[in-house]
Amino acid sequence: MANTTAMANAIRALAMDAVQQANSGHPGAPMGMAEMAVALWSRHLRHNPVNPQWADRDRFILSNGHASMLNYAVLHLSGYDLSMDDLKKFRTLHSKTAGHPEVDLTPGVETTTGPLGQGITNAVGFALAEKLLAAEFNRPKHKIVDHHTYVFLGDGCLMEGISHEAAALAGAWKLNKLIALYDDNGISIDGQITPWFVDNTAERFKAYQWNVIGPVDGHDVDAIDAAIAAAKKSSDKPTLVICKTHIGKGSPNRQDTSKAHGEPLGADEIALVREGLQWSHAPFEIPQDVYKDWDAKTVGAKTERSWQTRFNAYAKAHPELAAEFTRRMAGELPANFHQVVVDSIIDAHTKQEKVATRKASQIALEAFTKALPELLGGSADLTGSNLTNTSSTPALRFDAAGNVVKTEAGQIGRHINYGVREFGMAAVMNGVALHGGYIPYGGTFLTFSDYSRNAIRMAALMKRRVVHVFTHDSIGLGEDGPTHQSIEHAASLRLIPNLDVWRPADTAETAVAWAEALLQKDRPTALLLSRQAVPYAAKKDVADIKRGAYVLSEPADIGLKQAAQAVILATGTEVALAMQAQQLLAERGVAVRVVSVPSTNAFDRQDTKYKTKVLPENLPRIAVEAGVTDFWWKYGCAAVVGIDRFGESAPAGDLFKFFGFTPENIANTVQLALQKRA
Amino acid sequence: MANTTAMANAIRALAMDAVQQANSGHPGAPMGMAEMAVALWSRHLRHNPVNPQWADRDRFILSNGHASMLNYAVLHLSGYDLSMDDLKKFRTLHSKTAGHPEVDLTPGVETTTGPLGQGITNAVGFALAEKLLAAEFNRPKHKIVDHHTYVFLGDGCLMEGISHEAAALAGAWKLNKLIALYDDNGISIDGQITPWFVDNTAERFKAYQWNVIGPVDGHDVDAIDAAIAAAKKSSDKPTLVICKTHIGKGSPNRQDTSKAHGEPLGADEIALVREGLQWSHAPFEIPQDVYKDWDAKTVGAKTERSWQTRFNAYAKAHPELAAEFTRRMAGELPANFHQVVVDSIIDAHTKQEKVATRKASQIALEAFTKALPELLGGSADLTGSNLTNTSSTPALRFDAAGNVVKTEAGQIGRHINYGVREFGMAAVMNGVALHGGYIPYGGTFLTFSDYSRNAIRMAALMKRRVVHVFTHDSIGLGEDGPTHQSIEHAASLRLIPNLDVWRPADTAETAVAWAEALLQKDRPTALLLSRQAVPYAAKKDVADIKRGAYVLSEPADIGLKQAAQAVILATGTEVALAMQAQQLLAERGVAVRVVSVPSTNAFDRQDTKYKTKVLPENLPRIAVEAGVTDFWWKYGCAAVVGIDRFGESAPAGDLFKFFGFTPENIANTVQLALQKRA
Repeated sequence: MANTTAMANAIRALAMDAVQQANSGHPGAPMGMAEMAVALWSRHLRHNPVNPQWADRDRFILSNGHASMLNYAVLHLSGYDLSMDDLKKFRTLHSKTAGHPEVDLTPGVETTTGPLGQGITNAVGFALAEKLLAAEFNRPKHKIVDHHTYVFLGDGCLMEGISHEAAALAGAWKLNKLIALYDDNGISIDGQITPWFVDNTAERFKAYQWNVIGPVDGHDVDAIDAAIAAAKKSSDKPTLVICKTHIGKGSPNRQDTSKAHGEPLGADEIALVREGLQWSHAPFEIPQDVYKDWDAKTVGAKTERSWQTRFNAYAKAHPELAAEFTRRMAGELPANFHQVVVDSIIDAHTKQEKVATRKASQIALEAFTKALPELLGGSADLTGSNLTNTSSTPALRFDAAGNVVKTEAGQIGRHINYGVREFGMAAVMNGVALHGGYIPYGGTFLTFSDYSRNAIRMAALMKRRVVHVFTHDSIGLGEDGPTHQSIEHAASLRLIPNLDVWRPADTAETAVAWAEALLQKDRPTALLLSRQAVPYAAKKDVADIKRGAYVLSEPADIGLKQAAQAVILATGTEVALAMQAQQLLAERGVAVRVVSVPSTNAFDRQDTKYKTKVLPENLPRIAVEAGVTDFWWKYGCAAVVGIDRFGESAPAGDLFKFFGFTPENIANTVQLALQKRA
Repeated sequence: MANTTAMANAIRALAMDAVQQANSGHPGAPMGMAEMAVALWSRHLRHNPVNPQWADRDRFILSNGHASMLNYAVLHLSGYDLSMDDLKKFRTLHSKTAGHPEVDLTPGVETTTGPLGQGITNAVGFALAEKLLAAEFNRPKHKIVDHHTYVFLGDGCLMEGISHEAAALAGAWKLNKLIALYDDNGISIDGQITPWFVDNTAERFKAYQWNVIGPVDGHDVDAIDAAIAAAKKSSDKPTLVICKTHIGKGSPNRQDTSKAHGEPLGADEIALVREGLQWSHAPFEIPQDVYKDWDAKTVGAKTERSWQTRFNAYAKAHPELAAEFTRRMAGELPANFHQVVVDSIIDAHTKQEKVATRKASQIALEAFTKALPELLGGSADLTGSNLTNTSSTPALRFDAAGNVVKTEAGQIGRHINYGVREFGMAAVMNGVALHGGYIPYGGTFLTFSDYSRNAIRMAALMKRRVVHVFTHDSIGLGEDGPTHQSIEHAASLRLIPNLDVWRPADTAETAVAWAEALLQKDRPTALLLSRQAVPYAAKKDVADIKRGAYVLSEPADIGLKQAAQAVILATGTEVALAMQAQQLLAERGVAVRVVSVPSTNAFDRQDTKYKTKVLPENLPRIAVEAGVTDFWWKYGCAAVVGIDRFGESAPAGDLFKFFGFTPENIANTVQLALQKRA
């Protein structure tokens, strides 16, 4: 029999000692959740410490990420490649033990958490991906996808609005293999929560159609064990296990106080904890028998081997499915995808359709969703506006028993009605991408990227391929008015490191934008798309679109013999205006080059030679974008035609005129810039 | 007896006709909520159409703002200064009838809505302000503050995460005079909501400690009337009235479908509606008897007069309180506040304390909260980190009966524990500011401004004085790591029109930033404050700080005889580094000016003369800020010392070195820029 008391106390000791050594961190939550971790990790979690990438492992997500030392402790103790030395370097530069858990940095960490509420929402995405992959790939007698998603979460996660969206989606999707353990300790940073947190959480989750178990004693390993066992039997509902715990459990002076939350206990208090727990070992010293009780390597290897045997049988019976499963989980695109991309771009370039770029997006998606079964689309209740659905993506539905509904052809639904839940959608997509097997994309209006902004940031930080389809991207949205019109959004999204923002001008640029979004494995992409139709921007070549900026039209292309005197940079729906301004300027005897800039991020990655070719140093630059001007000065512009105030409610055409987005105003601005220079 | 059927149908007709005329808009929700509006507006709402600013009016908030035509219809019909011509101009440029309701544009509109979920959250702020003002100003036999806050909201609002934060806060605060009517029509844009919205909303709201009434028949005026009457009797709980309705009620082919939601019905369908409703009047024609039934001018004037009589008696009994109430509701600061500001700045300048700017903020707040009883602070569960509380702001608490707890000195609590609800906090603050009587401020970490971003934007759009205290403003946050470290946030907040962003460098700049935030009535402010201590930046004068950028140190100030060869622009915690770099450069024979830039927004409003004085055209500029570089090119910089990637988890000192925020690197960058120029 394992000594669960010692196992739990090992977590407590490592947490308080590492926080003390780092002189910063959060000891209270790891100490409070120690028995929850023992119950889950030693009695339920199916994982193999030697192979943290095993496809069918259970996923563990620490939504209250500040309890990172709990995660590091159990990873270390159970046998992951995380040494005691790593623990000693907690919160120091370039260690494997960052302040909050970071995916890819620490083996066994499934997602980066810390911003509260997003971990549980990621977990919903993990559990959704599992359910969908199981429906897609499992075959009678061959259950190769069959794992649980476990989450620890605290009061903070449950106060955040996104927990509402996450829980509602999990309930609607009947994610029975999602099991969340709530660290119900009654304390948040400001103190005892009663004055500001009066939710009846059990009733709240029942209202979301969850299975709620408890409250159980969160320091009773057997009780938690039994609750998890019961949760695993749920066939059509996610489960919340409410664990009544004491923050800082074991600390005589800090337990049950917010003082236990976010600072070292101090040497004296740590000594008292050691005494009280009868834990006589030195800091960072764990007795061998405790290691033995925690060790999961042997069982883990065996569990994975057993799965591998099953997978081998599956591969024998269904070789194509097995190969596809392997490809999908590796995140590799099919070999023919490059050709699909080329065909789509050429098709757009040939047809030269005048459509809104949101429609251009749907056209590109029509081909790409057909070619890529891993594309899992959706919209935050704006499907008909975002045009995120295609003929290959039936709506995802679940039957009363909780099973994924399949089409007559046996396909699962691949377009998700996320409801009016932008932040939830974004964080669920992050979870889906982290799980693997699908490439998620989802739509809303660009302005409401504000709602999901931190989840977009998290995808960028985690380097995950998630595609945001943001339509109605400027004052071109029209009558709905300033609450719905993006002004600062294009510029402000471009500031998020490792996020690619594309604002394409026509069907070809949109196809390229989509292709780049899918080809870039290590970053998310935001596609900014128009409500209103735009003409195809006549171009000789489509090869340079993917470089983010390219010469769209030279003076010679409109019959001028003069060399360009200036460059107009334009994006999205303003490219057509720039082309008209070029024409108008030609009539006034001024020759300009038009550069289309669908992605400043992609352009910034080009070499100096290409950049200088597109934007010669000696020519003044005038940028045109229906958004804030501040961003464009980085390209050394002489002038920017933009909009530095909120919009108005009126038809788009009226607004473009009112705000100066006309060929005349652009042409005048160019001429003024040339005069100033002269 | 009023003909309530005709009253409701008048709303339907105006909504469908105005949407048809605009060729865009949302007829379904107004048609579905018509009886709800009749019941509320004709039988309960205490308001005076002739004076939409009457202090003690009931507030009506349309959280599902796309139903704007319902709001405009009832405002017009009941006698507000909103003519039939205004209705005919629905959704056209510069009309008083924008696509979504906009405060200050249309008399009787209390808040700008459209971004779902925020209206109900604003309403929580309105109801909170009412309850606090009542506690502060009412006296035995003198009840001068006594009104209700009514909200209409739909499925979309209830799906949004922020609805969770709003409802939880309203429950915790026992806001019994908040009455929300839920337009429960079972349809959202993507169709019948059952696959994606399975919440049991009644149980959910009971879990938040709300009083839930219904479902009632949302097309039965008497039933809704009775429900509202019952809701008004609640003494310690907010109320949700669930009204079962039919979207597009009256439209034979669109009722109960998402087609009714967001597009004109079309002439044929409109004819069928007219026929079905037996509404034979031409578009924009309302019979006189319907106007008569709707008219609220007489009763409204009487109601206000009766209040005025009571207020006069109050003013006689409590003249100082009455004057203070009038001042507070007008949003005017007390006459002595300017002196308090001057004293605070001089005090900071004299003491020259080395503290974190978050501490500097608390020091300024200590004086300002004492001087301004209207300052209503709070924090999203980070009080001890944000330092938003002072000795004048006890924690706000409510007793079991729902009353505001007062201190022994009879003061109400003025610091709010918002819980971990950043978005909710921001939108509640907007509601408080809109109601009047208080100036709200609230704190969280700067990175989590992402969570509340759209509410910050809404404050800017609505031109309301709301102060965001964003601490831990850069990699200086240290060990908590990249999830918590702001990189793009300062720059991206500066892009929001009409928001002032301040990133002060020391105690004097922080006092100025706070003063400016409070003195500017027509805009919100974000204060970006450091976790770590910074030295006082030696300066000769504090007068120009409020201009947003000023010359902090000339070469002569450090004993050089040379004129400046370059200008270093720095903000916040990097100002001290710039000063050290200036010294280091002097040792290397290079003379530079240091310009401190606490607020680019304020600086951008200065005249050209001042701007050129601070940033002479002939001197190269090098900007230093621990954030993304893109923003700074707008000041024509030759180089920017910044950080264009996510941070790391480590002590702040290590990170500043690792990312090149050292006097050496700044000095080298300046020298390189000078070499390039030479």
